[in-house]
Amino acid sequence: MTTTPVLPETMRVSQLDAAHSVRLTERPVPTPGASEVLVRVAAVGVCGSDTHYYEHGRIGPFVVTAPLVLGHEASGTIVAVGSGVDAARIGSRVSIEPQKPCRACEQCKAGRYNLCAAMEFFATPPIDGAFAEYVLIEQDFAHDVPDSISDASAALVEPLSVGIAACHKAEVTAGSRVLIAGAGPIGVITAQVARAFGAVEVHISDVSEPRLAFALQHGATHAHLAGAPLEHLAVDAFIDASGAAPAIRAGIPAVRPAGRVILVGLGADSLEMPVNLIQNNELWVTGVFRYANTWPTAIALLANGSVNLDALVTGSFGLDEVEAALTASRDGASMKTIVTPAS
Amino acid sequence: MTTTPVLPETMRVSQLDAAHSVRLTERPVPTPGASEVLVRVAAVGVCGSDTHYYEHGRIGPFVVTAPLVLGHEASGTIVAVGSGVDAARIGSRVSIEPQKPCRACEQCKAGRYNLCAAMEFFATPPIDGAFAEYVLIEQDFAHDVPDSISDASAALVEPLSVGIAACHKAEVTAGSRVLIAGAGPIGVITAQVARAFGAVEVHISDVSEPRLAFALQHGATHAHLAGAPLEHLAVDAFIDASGAAPAIRAGIPAVRPAGRVILVGLGADSLEMPVNLIQNNELWVTGVFRYANTWPTAIALLANGSVNLDALVTGSFGLDEVEAALTASRDGASMKTIVTPAS
Amino acid sequence: MTTTPVLPETMRVSQLDAAHSVRLTERPVPTPGASEVLVRVAAVGVCGSDTHYYEHGRIGPFVVTAPLVLGHEASGTIVAVGSGVDAARIGSRVSIEPQKPCRACEQCKAGRYNLCAAMEFFATPPIDGAFAEYVLIEQDFAHDVPDSISDASAALVEPLSVGIAACHKAEVTAGSRVLIAGAGPIGVITAQVARAFGAVEVHISDVSEPRLAFALQHGATHAHLAGAPLEHLAVDAFIDASGAAPAIRAGIPAVRPAGRVILVGLGADSLEMPVNLIQNNELWVTGVFRYANTWPTAIALLANGSVNLDALVTGSFGLDEVEAALTASRDGASMKTIVTPAS
Amino acid sequence: MTTTPVLPETMRVSQLDAAHSVRLTERPVPTPGASEVLVRVAAVGVCGSDTHYYEHGRIGPFVVTAPLVLGHEASGTIVAVGSGVDAARIGSRVSIEPQKPCRACEQCKAGRYNLCAAMEFFATPPIDGAFAEYVLIEQDFAHDVPDSISDASAALVEPLSVGIAACHKAEVTAGSRVLIAGAGPIGVITAQVARAFGAVEVHISDVSEPRLAFALQHGATHAHLAGAPLEHLAVDAFIDASGAAPAIRAGIPAVRPAGRVILVGLGADSLEMPVNLIQNNELWVTGVFRYANTWPTAIALLANGSVNLDALVTGSFGLDEVEAALTASRDGASMKTIVTPAS
Repeated sequence: MTTTPVLPETMRVSQLDAAHSVRLTERPVPTPGASEVLVRVAAVGVCGSDTHYYEHGRIGPFVVTAPLVLGHEASGTIVAVGSGVDAARIGSRVSIEPQKPCRACEQCKAGRYNLCAAMEFFATPPIDGAFAEYVLIEQDFAHDVPDSISDASAALVEPLSVGIAACHKAEVTAGSRVLIAGAGPIGVITAQVARAFGAVEVHISDVSEPRLAFALQHGATHAHLAGAPLEHLAVDAFIDASGAAPAIRAGIPAVRPAGRVILVGLGADSLEMPVNLIQNNELWVTGVFRYANTWPTAIALLANGSVNLDALVTGSFGLDEVEAALTASRDGASMKTIVTPAS
Repeated sequence: MTTTPVLPETMRVSQLDAAHSVRLTERPVPTPGASEVLVRVAAVGVCGSDTHYYEHGRIGPFVVTAPLVLGHEASGTIVAVGSGVDAARIGSRVSIEPQKPCRACEQCKAGRYNLCAAMEFFATPPIDGAFAEYVLIEQDFAHDVPDSISDASAALVEPLSVGIAACHKAEVTAGSRVLIAGAGPIGVITAQVARAFGAVEVHISDVSEPRLAFALQHGATHAHLAGAPLEHLAVDAFIDASGAAPAIRAGIPAVRPAGRVILVGLGADSLEMPVNLIQNNELWVTGVFRYANTWPTAIALLANGSVNLDALVTGSFGLDEVEAALTASRDGASMKTIVTPAS
Repeated sequence: MTTTPVLPETMRVSQLDAAHSVRLTERPVPTPGASEVLVRVAAVGVCGSDTHYYEHGRIGPFVVTAPLVLGHEASGTIVAVGSGVDAARIGSRVSIEPQKPCRACEQCKAGRYNLCAAMEFFATPPIDGAFAEYVLIEQDFAHDVPDSISDASAALVEPLSVGIAACHKAEVTAGSRVLIAGAGPIGVITAQVARAFGAVEVHISDVSEPRLAFALQHGATHAHLAGAPLEHLAVDAFIDASGAAPAIRAGIPAVRPAGRVILVGLGADSLEMPVNLIQNNELWVTGVFRYANTWPTAIALLANGSVNLDALVTGSFGLDEVEAALTASRDGASMKTIVTPAS
Repeated sequence: MTTTPVLPETMRVSQLDAAHSVRLTERPVPTPGASEVLVRVAAVGVCGSDTHYYEHGRIGPFVVTAPLVLGHEASGTIVAVGSGVDAARIGSRVSIEPQKPCRACEQCKAGRYNLCAAMEFFATPPIDGAFAEYVLIEQDFAHDVPDSISDASAALVEPLSVGIAACHKAEVTAGSRVLIAGAGPIGVITAQVARAFGAVEVHISDVSEPRLAFALQHGATHAHLAGAPLEHLAVDAFIDASGAAPAIRAGIPAVRPAGRVILVGLGADSLEMPVNLIQNNELWVTGVFRYANTWPTAIALLANGSVNLDALVTGSFGLDEVEAALTASRDGASMKTIVTPAS
């Protein structure tokens, strides 16, 4: 391991012991393996999944049975590297892609490492996340960012990647017409991404008028209050970022023949779907499960100003305020809350 | 119009007046428009949709309000051509692609003419089908067949095209592992098509053991009685040819990550779908609505023996026996019933 | 035919009798066939192929053996419609897609009508072009444009379509890095299109510094004088808009593994190509032959300001000044010259 | 490392010291790293590249400056495994995929590990190959084969993979018409692969009538002696397995519009190409550089009899007869020569 002069032996970590139970603890600063880097964490975005673990102690089959560090949208600075990593990387500001695939299975070798069955993903039991002063990550999953990108935006490359994965699957391109359901953080980010992919119309639907107004200022071109007719839109693609059954059922008839339906938002495991429309219009329906190979595109779009994530930050909290950050994020008026472990 | 020496002025036609009411009538032999050919009909396959119209007088929004000629799986011989068609085509044995798209809309010009909103399709109100001695078709939708292909097989290029469209969407290729639900005519044909596309495993599921046994003799490599566990199969693609909700819900978990689910069978308009699997495994789900550009492939596969449709014919009826053909086709033991108008 | 009140019986037409011989003549105003519209021509862009016919009397196998009307980049207003066309279209401002495919061959039905062997294309012997007061076009090849798009820009949708076809084949998307050789009209338009498709870096190369400076102001992000090293760029795609062998040979090594090389510019029939790079890097190489299904995208990108073609217009000429327009267009300092038949 | 009871300390290896200088030496049996397996080598196919190194001491930039073990088409039995590999794999018969990519670069993570710039490939200086009693390989690049596949066929999965990679890029599918230039081992194997992908016509061209006759017995459907006209074929894809400039230039005009040209054979670095055809017909041209993710398909096609490689074996040699194997392979009458290190 190569390192900078002074690294402490212990660090502060915010851990979730059980639902509604978060506390600050001390842990040893970890040592990077041969292909890893140690990152001093500058900023971590709070995601709906973090809040869900805080509220319920589980997400579906993933149960918090031992203390878990939350947080998987993270940026920081490399402060030490493993034996197989170029020491010149120390000092680099990076955005963390918070996953470690096996690299050897069929899915990994086919370029779909997000579908690796042996994936280790930040803040998913039993793998710890980034509400900590330092974290380890494989060297090629620590992506350099230019100084023009803020710590918060570098952290938010993670949800930006979800939007990019969705627009790739939706085949959004120059001239596309897109409908997005849900004007929360993912919906608004995806609206910006769709514009960056060349979409000329980005319709967004939501139950909240203030959220729609915000979306119109940050990427969307048209807003539709939930319940408004959408069928006439004949969009090329419908991206659901709501997980809400009524929104999904309202969006599918809005897609033109041979168009695409991309399910991003998480909701019920099972859903009544209009298979007659899928069949008669030969729609393509799929979902987004995280992302693969999106960080370079995301950083390029941030760097040239095609997307702007700083405008989505509605609050910043210290590592000792994680509980406040998690509950603030629950609030409908909030878009993106940031935790700053190293400050 | 160029024609062969002796064409009669009238022809026999079997028409459906209403549910359960079929009768033979006389109609004028039609005259081909500039780009059309007149075909003397040799063989017509009976499809489940023909039987459905006979039983119910409608399929969804398509209602039989005026006499309708059924039959859309047809072959025959060109006996006259329109002014814009090469007269050398007279005498050619052809398989009829029973559709007339507008050729000018977005879908047509993008190569997806099956999704043309202005489509005129045989045996779909108010467009008449092929239970008649003569029919008209656009010249490029009358596809030449070699003499090695029987009249019945030339008619069955239509359901064969459904299987080809399904395997194209399923991206079946050399080495693929495929699951097909439903061992009726479409399922068995699709099994053969999957083999012709290079699939090395073709699993088929059905509620009927005799149908499974038949399928194993005609394309499938493995059979599964409905209710047997399928989840371990991890196939590349699942093609539903049953339209049955339980079969669809059993098949989707059998697909590997990033695999494909192709809904061919018609059932309920709306269906409870496991969206968590679609999302977590990033499955692609779509339907098949008829076909476009499949006839050349279908004829090539028949000509070189990759598929064998004659083995599926379980009965042959004259034009005056259409009602018997329709009710025989309803019978579970039957695979494909043929009507022979010109005999 | 439905028409507006007063249509003249004859019209002025500028015809090329032979190389270097252009003259104004009178011809009857044509009558639209059932599926055609008659367009009063507002603006026509001069293309390099027009100038080539003027200079040489031929382009490869296409020889001017009878008087030929040049001009294939055209816009105008519908003034009459055929019997099968909605009369409500009279008065619509349109951009003309100057081609008439057969709609029935394999290529047409597969969505690649630009490759139709029976294509009738404007200003390609023996088909007349648009240096005329009125022209006929199939109704679905007359594309409505909003009033925000000028006559000149509506005409230049034609070269814009070439850029769109190139970026589609190059798979330009958000975050792409692109190299374009040739900073003439097609190169500059393609640079704008690449940006509209989400490219973050658009490199352009040319022998002319003024052309490079112009390109940097109208879409390109980086300029390279011919001869400068390009190999380090490792772009996702290289689009040649020069037709120059040295530019093509310099561009191919600049492409990353699995990247794309799109040959748009016309040059020699045969070219020494670095097949070792194509093989070792598995580059995909293809060409662009006109376009299919690009007008809707092109008009959408113009309408929302993603591309700006008015800035490329460097001269405007009447129908009696076509020879001046053709020779001006030959001038290196000129970008796009416009002829205005109806003014 | 887990191992079977008795492993020797040294092994016999055939090494190339310089052009025309091959000799048998003793080396230590290597020890598998954590993710590696040790394979006792049963069979190794001789490839044209082996012969080329033997004759010239180099292939382009790759120069034999230190002793090199040739042979990269290999099969055998796992006899020891690294600490991270399931010991149950000991005793498995495997086909070796003779490459070790970095797994971390852009190409690897996109599923194109064959284009990894840090690739370590068997028998390519300075990486040793498989003319040895034992070799190491990453555990996931040792692919289990069923007992129905012979040692020789398991070794020849390597050239079979080249054919599969070519047919994938050529988009060969059911009904395809394909032209292959060169009836050597790769050409004949590719002909069989094309059939397994569903091709209905597989044309092959060569300068040698005996080779054409052999190809017709092993996959090809039509043979063309070099110089015969091919332009009328209008095939969907042309795969060059000859590397010969005249064959490539004769094959390209035989491709239909929008068809594919896949350059597999190695010849000159630079080649005069008919760019006018590539442009006017929008052909897609690319090359094949080894393969990625082909072994499972290859083994499946061998296992179900879709391809037959045993028929291509024309000689078998011991490890002490490598020079004879290399020179026999040079002989035009030979198809595939096998070396059997462990016998």
